[in-house]
Amino acid sequence: MPPGTIVHVGEQRHEPVKLSVIKYDAADFQEKTVATVEAALSFRSKSSVMWLNIDGVHQPEIIEQVAKSFGLHPLVAEDIASTGQRPKLEDFDDYIFVVLRMLRFDGNENETKTEQMSIIFGRDFVVSFQEREGDVFDHIRERLRNNKGRIRKLGADYLAYSLIDSIVDNYFMVLEKLGETIEDIEDRLVANPTSETLQTIHDLKREMIFLRKSVWPLREVINRLERSESALINKSTFVYLRDVYDHTIQVMDAVETFRDILSGMLDIYLSSVSNRMNEVMKVLTVIATIFIPLTFVAGIYGMNFRYMPELEQTWSYPAVLVLMLVVALLMVVYFRRKKWI
Amino acid sequence: MPPGTIVHVGEQRHEPVKLSVIKYDAADFQEKTVATVEAALSFRSKSSVMWLNIDGVHQPEIIEQVAKSFGLHPLVAEDIASTGQRPKLEDFDDYIFVVLRMLRFDGNENETKTEQMSIIFGRDFVVSFQEREGDVFDHIRERLRNNKGRIRKLGADYLAYSLIDSIVDNYFMVLEKLGETIEDIEDRLVANPTSETLQTIHDLKREMIFLRKSVWPLREVINRLERSESALINKSTFVYLRDVYDHTIQVMDAVETFRDILSGMLDIYLSSVSNRMNEVMKVLTVIATIFIPLTFVAGIYGMNFRYMPELEQTWSYPAVLVLMLVVALLMVVYFRRKKWI
Amino acid sequence: MPPGTIVHVGEQRHEPVKLSVIKYDAADFQEKTVATVEAALSFRSKSSVMWLNIDGVHQPEIIEQVAKSFGLHPLVAEDIASTGQRPKLEDFDDYIFVVLRMLRFDGNENETKTEQMSIIFGRDFVVSFQEREGDVFDHIRERLRNNKGRIRKLGADYLAYSLIDSIVDNYFMVLEKLGETIEDIEDRLVANPTSETLQTIHDLKREMIFLRKSVWPLREVINRLERSESALINKSTFVYLRDVYDHTIQVMDAVETFRDILSGMLDIYLSSVSNRMNEVMKVLTVIATIFIPLTFVAGIYGMNFRYMPELEQTWSYPAVLVLMLVVALLMVVYFRRKKWI
Amino acid sequence: MPPGTIVHVGEQRHEPVKLSVIKYDAADFQEKTVATVEAALSFRSKSSVMWLNIDGVHQPEIIEQVAKSFGLHPLVAEDIASTGQRPKLEDFDDYIFVVLRMLRFDGNENETKTEQMSIIFGRDFVVSFQEREGDVFDHIRERLRNNKGRIRKLGADYLAYSLIDSIVDNYFMVLEKLGETIEDIEDRLVANPTSETLQTIHDLKREMIFLRKSVWPLREVINRLERSESALINKSTFVYLRDVYDHTIQVMDAVETFRDILSGMLDIYLSSVSNRMNEVMKVLTVIATIFIPLTFVAGIYGMNFRYMPELEQTWSYPAVLVLMLVVALLMVVYFRRKKWI
Amino acid sequence: MPPGTIVHVGEQRHEPVKLSVIKYDAADFQEKTVATVEAALSFRSKSSVMWLNIDGVHQPEIIEQVAKSFGLHPLVAEDIASTGQRPKLEDFDDYIFVVLRMLRFDGNENETKTEQMSIIFGRDFVVSFQEREGDVFDHIRERLRNNKGRIRKLGADYLAYSLIDSIVDNYFMVLEKLGETIEDIEDRLVANPTSETLQTIHDLKREMIFLRKSVWPLREVINRLERSESALINKSTFVYLRDVYDHTIQVMDAVETFRDILSGMLDIYLSSVSNRMNEVMKVLTVIATIFIPLTFVAGIYGMNFRYMPELEQTWSYPAVLVLMLVVALLMVVYFRRKKWI
Repeated sequence: MPPGTIVHVGEQRHEPVKLSVIKYDAADFQEKTVATVEAALSFRSKSSVMWLNIDGVHQPEIIEQVAKSFGLHPLVAEDIASTGQRPKLEDFDDYIFVVLRMLRFDGNENETKTEQMSIIFGRDFVVSFQEREGDVFDHIRERLRNNKGRIRKLGADYLAYSLIDSIVDNYFMVLEKLGETIEDIEDRLVANPTSETLQTIHDLKREMIFLRKSVWPLREVINRLERSESALINKSTFVYLRDVYDHTIQVMDAVETFRDILSGMLDIYLSSVSNRMNEVMKVLTVIATIFIPLTFVAGIYGMNFRYMPELEQTWSYPAVLVLMLVVALLMVVYFRRKKWI
Repeated sequence: MPPGTIVHVGEQRHEPVKLSVIKYDAADFQEKTVATVEAALSFRSKSSVMWLNIDGVHQPEIIEQVAKSFGLHPLVAEDIASTGQRPKLEDFDDYIFVVLRMLRFDGNENETKTEQMSIIFGRDFVVSFQEREGDVFDHIRERLRNNKGRIRKLGADYLAYSLIDSIVDNYFMVLEKLGETIEDIEDRLVANPTSETLQTIHDLKREMIFLRKSVWPLREVINRLERSESALINKSTFVYLRDVYDHTIQVMDAVETFRDILSGMLDIYLSSVSNRMNEVMKVLTVIATIFIPLTFVAGIYGMNFRYMPELEQTWSYPAVLVLMLVVALLMVVYFRRKKWI
Repeated sequence: MPPGTIVHVGEQRHEPVKLSVIKYDAADFQEKTVATVEAALSFRSKSSVMWLNIDGVHQPEIIEQVAKSFGLHPLVAEDIASTGQRPKLEDFDDYIFVVLRMLRFDGNENETKTEQMSIIFGRDFVVSFQEREGDVFDHIRERLRNNKGRIRKLGADYLAYSLIDSIVDNYFMVLEKLGETIEDIEDRLVANPTSETLQTIHDLKREMIFLRKSVWPLREVINRLERSESALINKSTFVYLRDVYDHTIQVMDAVETFRDILSGMLDIYLSSVSNRMNEVMKVLTVIATIFIPLTFVAGIYGMNFRYMPELEQTWSYPAVLVLMLVVALLMVVYFRRKKWI
Repeated sequence: MPPGTIVHVGEQRHEPVKLSVIKYDAADFQEKTVATVEAALSFRSKSSVMWLNIDGVHQPEIIEQVAKSFGLHPLVAEDIASTGQRPKLEDFDDYIFVVLRMLRFDGNENETKTEQMSIIFGRDFVVSFQEREGDVFDHIRERLRNNKGRIRKLGADYLAYSLIDSIVDNYFMVLEKLGETIEDIEDRLVANPTSETLQTIHDLKREMIFLRKSVWPLREVINRLERSESALINKSTFVYLRDVYDHTIQVMDAVETFRDILSGMLDIYLSSVSNRMNEVMKVLTVIATIFIPLTFVAGIYGMNFRYMPELEQTWSYPAVLVLMLVVALLMVVYFRRKKWI
Repeated sequence: MPPGTIVHVGEQRHEPVKLSVIKYDAADFQEKTVATVEAALSFRSKSSVMWLNIDGVHQPEIIEQVAKSFGLHPLVAEDIASTGQRPKLEDFDDYIFVVLRMLRFDGNENETKTEQMSIIFGRDFVVSFQEREGDVFDHIRERLRNNKGRIRKLGADYLAYSLIDSIVDNYFMVLEKLGETIEDIEDRLVANPTSETLQTIHDLKREMIFLRKSVWPLREVINRLERSESALINKSTFVYLRDVYDHTIQVMDAVETFRDILSGMLDIYLSSVSNRMNEVMKVLTVIATIFIPLTFVAGIYGMNFRYMPELEQTWSYPAVLVLMLVVALLMVVYFRRKKWI
């Protein structure tokens, strides 16, 4: 297919795509769920900000309509549909296109799920695409509705910043959950390490690899946004972008720390396995080393030679028993000294 | 040999070199398989784009003719013939010379094969050299024939981009195949790891090393192309080059992730081997530790001392048997507690 | 919550927040504990330096008052309250905002504790926020009171430098304590390594990870301060900043060295464990290898065949005993040669 | 000794130093072995290129004469004599001084030997110093003699490039030899790994360390040469230098790949050792676990109690034998299931 | 204490501080041991170079006098006294302050000792501080006395260079000693590795960590010196500084190579330990596997059943002996095939 073709890549979906529009300025606020892109466009006006949020990227025609209406480059439309993009930023002069990954911790499967989030923002609009319904933006909608904070007074760039900020803040939530899982395993590692513990450590390590893949490029995206000289971003927004940037670095730090901790846990697991092996060997050695010589002595006096004078004495049986006891005790003392028992 | 000498380096080949020409502009399209370079040159014209694709670099005279006809530097001709080049880009003012590696996953041998692909493009021509017939460009030819998309309206630089894009897209296919193999092994690793599993993990690790060698320099090639100020590349093509660049980074990411996963699998393999050793040791220890002391007791009463009063009692044989049973049971209880059985 | 909301993040606290003001110039010095931010502001004057130190960031209203009084950006106020920030520097034109981590080595729990320290300084003031009472600035207060050194003659920037310098110097103290712990373990590692030793090594490794997280960004903070072109910093202060920078690098060096040493200790631990396993195996092997053949010989002559001519000879019993002794001695000689005993 | 003193550092040598001169331009060619530096100087002329090759750097007086005649800096003379230099480039305005390492694979000792090669080139001369006779430049001499290629038409800079190119090309030869050795070991690693295999892997790893030390700085040398703005290098030579640069990167790539492969081989070796240990343990466990219980049963009926009713029955001996057989078979079945036999 | 306070940090010392002055120009030379700093200052003159060398930094008053006399910054004085500085360079306009670490290999304790060396040089003076008497500058003093080489004709910058050069050259000596120790261990590693060998390898690794800490920053120091635009350094000195720089890189290369080699030796040690374990296990397995079945057979015929027909036959005893021999031989053949014996 030629580049610029809109093909949905990713998990198959069938639910209808949901379009919801919010239009606001310092004074007014409107919110509506619309059926078509055209209906949404009627909300656009130069003096207010329109936020069009679209849940679902599996209907190419909708993406195409959005692309036409907002004058997006064909490659942007292609990227929105093919979920699996690395976080990135493209600065076209009229609009900025940002791809992020939104995380969700699935408590049932103990797994982090990611979803591609595309944000396009211009002077007076923000269009956001998500793969499925359900997001981390409810508190932003709340602030818009109730005119809390500065958000209604500021432009589309501040809204775009707010969306990105919510996504990054959500990373901390996911990290916290992973941190709890790590602590869980840590306790089990000391109490009773099994091969499942090992498996969980490796699963977590892999989670970290995927998290890292989502976060590393994000840092660059936000850095470029922060340093961009785009006319679309107000000066006063830059300090907020710098704040998100700091958060991204904190997330990265946490991911790296978790990786280091997991590596340490792997070492502890392996050395505890070899410690147990050691213990098993010691038991075997102690038992075998005490009884093999004694059995040999018993074997000696079990021989059927005709002339074995010891056998004839009354005291020789108890004497041999005592001898065996002494040998056994000496062995025990030796092992005690070696700290084997 | 002096630098600039054209010597074919690589696998020996004997099939004839195949030359095919495509000439197109927005209105016209011609396609032909020609016998000689001269025949191909007749297709060149200032107002249209000529694409000369040559399958086979083992006949120096053909490369030499191409070099002469298009005014290529002797070192370029040398590089085309000696397959084994690292991906690279040379910007001569009249033409740009790009070397890439085209991958092919050989399903039979479970191995990735690479082929050197040289692309030279100027204002009105693209010359591409492959080591053997069969490539990943059929969909481009199709688009040219049927005038699908923008390709016929754009210049030689867009065609060159399309070729590079196809090659990079093909990397994802190869990565997917490798990903499947990795998942296969992963299942086996849990079920029944053998030393062949280890061998396969190491083979895959080596595949990754080779893949990495092909992809890392590619990133720089495309980066330089994207940042080049060559007059040969149209402004509108840059956004497409940036897109290929993003794909290259995604490929690199995937390769690094696979490497990390394979390292983790190696750890799991090693620790599962040492776990099994542990299990073997436990069986030995349990059996030996139970029976060695019992055998010793039997040995005692097998001795031939004349005065062993116990031997004379009617109840002593069953008593000894019961004693042995008790010792064995105590041992079993001890091992249960230690979770060895 | 909208960005800029002041929410205390971190350990829950209930003690009242303590505000203490110091006002000084070359001639005068005043020091007072005040109840409110307003009371503190009355100490501010253009010709002298005011240092407002606040112990406790769990009362948002106090931070808000400070932010209003000194014209701080909402995000600065947010960062002060949410303890867990990475060391960072923000240069607003009127003031510079620095976040650091102050370390404290808890001798009881053998653990390093960190506390967030926020410093805001402008032309004539320094405001410092700590999480709890107790800090490393007593010697600075002493110097201010007694007019020791240059500190009273210099501006707010020098005071800010002094605070940072004290914090970095304190890192050396913590490192020294950790160094002592490492030496302790090292001795134990040679004498009698237990699995607790391993645990301690891993705990120390983790300490190093956390220390590193505090120190690495610090380097950049001080570097940026040193290279900043802010009008708030006097030229003569730069050489002092360069000095702190050097100290930071020394701290980082020490942390890296400790990490390397701890890794080496891990290797030694593991190889000492496997050495002991080896030793255990040798004892088992020596005992088993000597006595199993001898027991076999005894078994032979314990068989009840009717025709075993050896059994009838007077000399055969001592002969067999001698034979056994010879076999045992040969074994001992063999093991001596192999250096097993 | 003061810096600039010429002292031969390296292997002791006694053979006489050999000086050979070649003088050429597009039309003429002279070649001669001379006895003294003065004799060589008579070949110098502004309109042609003189190449003075000196085999042996153990006679300080010769280096001193060369230094005087060509106006070399004392430190250059010192560097020529002290073999063990890292590859480097010094651009004095009148001449460029390049130090390289020439490799030689010693087939007998399976070892790569290196030799320091110093090249000084100016507008009309190239002086090259080697540690001993025998080099990789015969094909260059051949081309000069027979006026093959462009070399006679171009200046001293092209000759210098040709020398460097030959040395780098020779690296590929050495790498090929090492590659063959690696393949050899790989086969042995699968068939029958011994501790010698391990030693060879480590020897090869060390070879790689030394190769790397020779090649890494070389990259920088050629890079600086390529980017230099020295008037001594013609514009047309730069494309050739870029070509050598590409080759250097290929060599480095190959070295890194070999290192990775050798690390993988080490892993395979270690895990094959532990596999064999496992196998040994299994044999021991199977034999011991089958026979220890049986021996115990035999011990029971070897006891000398007066009242052991079983002993008196005709059928009890065969019954016990059958019982033993059944126990043994059950054990065998158990081990089969565990895949131990 | 306020920054700039001179406190001796490091090993306690009590010997008197030794001051020695050398004053020279092309024509004159004076050398004297003086008692006070004032006495030394009388040697200073604009037309000649004065070198004041001070052995001992444990008397703050002397450092203070020097600082006053030469106009040094308080932080410079502080750094001189607190030994433990990282190598660094500070360029004040009137003088340059360089801190280095001088190494000394203590043959008795097989340990490298370091000493802080501070060099301050201006237009007409060099002041050098060492921690104790005894240094690597005797050959420089010799050259000054005898007017050997260029040193008397050149300025203070050349003297400073000479001091730095001597220190770096001395590193090679230390590295050579360490290289010999490494070779020693290597031989022992093959012949008879003990746990002391392991300890020595780890000690050497730690030595390397410390060496690295001394050398890495040195590289930057010399680099900055070389690139500095200070008026205090003559143009002709730069080529010498570049030479020291190259030596520093060679030292770093050697340190890295030694680290790699030591890591390889660690691997060899570990795998030789596991090889020996393997060997021990094989001996145990061979002995146990041969004799346990035989002992079982002997046990069978030691049973006291009344009806064991075999026992009554004349030929059955020798037949059983032969059977045992055959079983033992078969086992031996089996182990031979497995290459265990």
